[in-house]
Amino acid sequence: MTVPAPDIGLATTLFARLRELAFDGAGITRDTYGAGEQAAHDLMAATAHALGLEVRTDAALNLYLTLPGRDRALPAVMTGSHLDSVPLGGNYDGAAGVVAGLAVLAGWRAAGQVPQHDVTVMSIRAEESAWFPVSYIGSKAAFGLLPAEALSACRFDTGQPLREHLSRHGGRPDDVARGVASLRAEAIDCFVELHIEQGPVLLGDGHAMGVVTGICGSRRYRRARALGAYAHSGATPRLHRRDAVAATAALIHGAQQDWAALEAAGHELTLTFGQIDTDAHQSDLSKVAGEVAFCVDIRSRSHATLAAMDDRLQAAAAALQASHGVVFDFGVRSGSEPAEMNAALRQALSQAAAEQGSPAPALPSGAGHDSATFANAGVPSAMLFVRNAHGSHNPDEAMATADFAAATTVLGTVLGQRAGLSITSALPAR
Amino acid sequence: MTVPAPDIGLATTLFARLRELAFDGAGITRDTYGAGEQAAHDLMAATAHALGLEVRTDAALNLYLTLPGRDRALPAVMTGSHLDSVPLGGNYDGAAGVVAGLAVLAGWRAAGQVPQHDVTVMSIRAEESAWFPVSYIGSKAAFGLLPAEALSACRFDTGQPLREHLSRHGGRPDDVARGVASLRAEAIDCFVELHIEQGPVLLGDGHAMGVVTGICGSRRYRRARALGAYAHSGATPRLHRRDAVAATAALIHGAQQDWAALEAAGHELTLTFGQIDTDAHQSDLSKVAGEVAFCVDIRSRSHATLAAMDDRLQAAAAALQASHGVVFDFGVRSGSEPAEMNAALRQALSQAAAEQGSPAPALPSGAGHDSATFANAGVPSAMLFVRNAHGSHNPDEAMATADFAAATTVLGTVLGQRAGLSITSALPAR
Repeated sequence: MTVPAPDIGLATTLFARLRELAFDGAGITRDTYGAGEQAAHDLMAATAHALGLEVRTDAALNLYLTLPGRDRALPAVMTGSHLDSVPLGGNYDGAAGVVAGLAVLAGWRAAGQVPQHDVTVMSIRAEESAWFPVSYIGSKAAFGLLPAEALSACRFDTGQPLREHLSRHGGRPDDVARGVASLRAEAIDCFVELHIEQGPVLLGDGHAMGVVTGICGSRRYRRARALGAYAHSGATPRLHRRDAVAATAALIHGAQQDWAALEAAGHELTLTFGQIDTDAHQSDLSKVAGEVAFCVDIRSRSHATLAAMDDRLQAAAAALQASHGVVFDFGVRSGSEPAEMNAALRQALSQAAAEQGSPAPALPSGAGHDSATFANAGVPSAMLFVRNAHGSHNPDEAMATADFAAATTVLGTVLGQRAGLSITSALPAR
Repeated sequence: MTVPAPDIGLATTLFARLRELAFDGAGITRDTYGAGEQAAHDLMAATAHALGLEVRTDAALNLYLTLPGRDRALPAVMTGSHLDSVPLGGNYDGAAGVVAGLAVLAGWRAAGQVPQHDVTVMSIRAEESAWFPVSYIGSKAAFGLLPAEALSACRFDTGQPLREHLSRHGGRPDDVARGVASLRAEAIDCFVELHIEQGPVLLGDGHAMGVVTGICGSRRYRRARALGAYAHSGATPRLHRRDAVAATAALIHGAQQDWAALEAAGHELTLTFGQIDTDAHQSDLSKVAGEVAFCVDIRSRSHATLAAMDDRLQAAAAALQASHGVVFDFGVRSGSEPAEMNAALRQALSQAAAEQGSPAPALPSGAGHDSATFANAGVPSAMLFVRNAHGSHNPDEAMATADFAAATTVLGTVLGQRAGLSITSALPAR
């Protein structure tokens, strides 16, 4: 089967427009349930209208852009990704998956082709947990799985709860709280998400794309603290101190060694202390620090590995409490479940890539993705990573258009296979 | 010789009034060359006027409150301390030394006694380097020793330079820059400063006061940074990271061990990393940190010890640059010179304390004090520490009135000895 080429011209236009809408002078900021994310959703809805797709939203304001199939009773083939970004992020993290889906459907429309199954591009809300301390808000809400208490979580910058942000943009927080689902796994054939790679693996290997084996889950402590005692830096002898900075440094340094030891024992994980801060008002050059705030992010595809690293961290903190006279308070633990990708879809993606002359190696996803929600809800799910320089969550993300085009072609091929695309063109089947 | 008792009632009144003027809801804030410090200076000037003392200021707005002696050509006997505080500091750090001096002179006035030498209580400006990144601004300026470039240093909260702050309150920054001195060592008999102890030594020993042996100097890095690379926390393998937090934690943890090793080798010092911060805008729970800012404060009475600790820190940073792929930039080094206290004055203070039944052990000062400027300018100088709970630079400073009264009595005895106080009362000489 030959599937019509995606409309890469449309994709290029959409990326440029997305950048214009969200560039804040230093990076791309599409704030979750704020003006930035909304502008991107509005752009995708308008584009879908122009392509003649069905457009609908759900209680959480996820956006569903659907090319109706010949048999609407068949389970829908789904693709898409999220449109929000971290503060000062890049243009491609998330948005590339939505743009790719629209480019595929635009190509089909231009070629006059109609699938058997509905094909839906989902613009997912609130994937980045940078704004609200909750993972996968949009995709969980779509399945009716978002815990009601998540609606009380406050956005770090506005201080306002998710409920308030959602209402302001026309969402229905009460329905979300009651677990009203807009997606049911039985009604979905598959979910295939295209996303930039956020690490350096494909760039190092020289591959334009890769097929994801599984998605890491996480254990996170967003508001951990070490509590000691403020004291004069010159007048307080070493053994009289309860130094929150020294204790936290010991914790972080020791945890790096624990991480290396777990890796040496065959575990796959990451461990990150991305933020650490003394109190802006109470700390001083000439004071021993009485308090340090920090956050912890442990990720792994294995439940057991997540627990092993977390256990070591807690044990180290307990030991340091005794030796340093401080108290560690890790606060509320959050996180997400690891997820395995569907074998048949992985195989289909690999084969399509190989046949196109762009072999796609298998690789894990250290980052979390909405595909994990779909997979854990029972939907056959897969992800295609596109090579990308400079990582993500920063303004320097760099995905080549040629790599995006190659991966979007592979995506379109597999979506076409799953959706039973009618062959109406004169091109010979492969 | 029996010296009249200090006026502790006046002292109690002044402490209460100082607290009223500077309590900000959480602590005492007498901001350097700001409204808080000025209010305290105004209070002391008004009190001195009421006592019939001479009142004058210099180009840096230090305040000199003088009881004229019978022979004004004799070198002046000086006491006093600073009136500024750190943000959210306590009521006694600094102010106790000025209040003590006025209490002594008030007692002499009440008893109708007149010294041979002028006796001057100096209210010194800008001792706390929490506001401007410069040590001993007021006392250095008094001796014409403040480097002209210090006038360009900006206050951390207002962002305005010292020159501007000084002008606003009626000072003469051009004179300060030209090194115009209001004090000459030859014209000063001695400087004796009463100050609360800022550490726990006297409290632990059960002594109401102690005599300082020497004052620590410092080496400081106020704006040190570790520069790595921001990267996705889940997608960036351990060995691909340039993690500024992990590198800084390793530096701080290693430096604690270096400190312990230097102490074991007989060095006396303190080492403090009082502030550490990732960038509020660029850092995130889900990012490897690309930058960490921190500060370093090394203190010792020994030049060689200051250099030894600093050398170890620099060597550790160089090694971590190689192993962690980060760059350490320590920024501008600042600091102050160590100072020895005058032996004859120390002996006089110890003896007066012992005769009064309050033995005063010898102890070093880990904190810096204006007495170091006097000593290094060639003035015989000494310090009397008063027992104090909870350290200093915090709202919980706790000095008992009885301890203050005992120490102020010792101060008055030594000032009276040095100033040649006439015995006009009917009390028998000891």
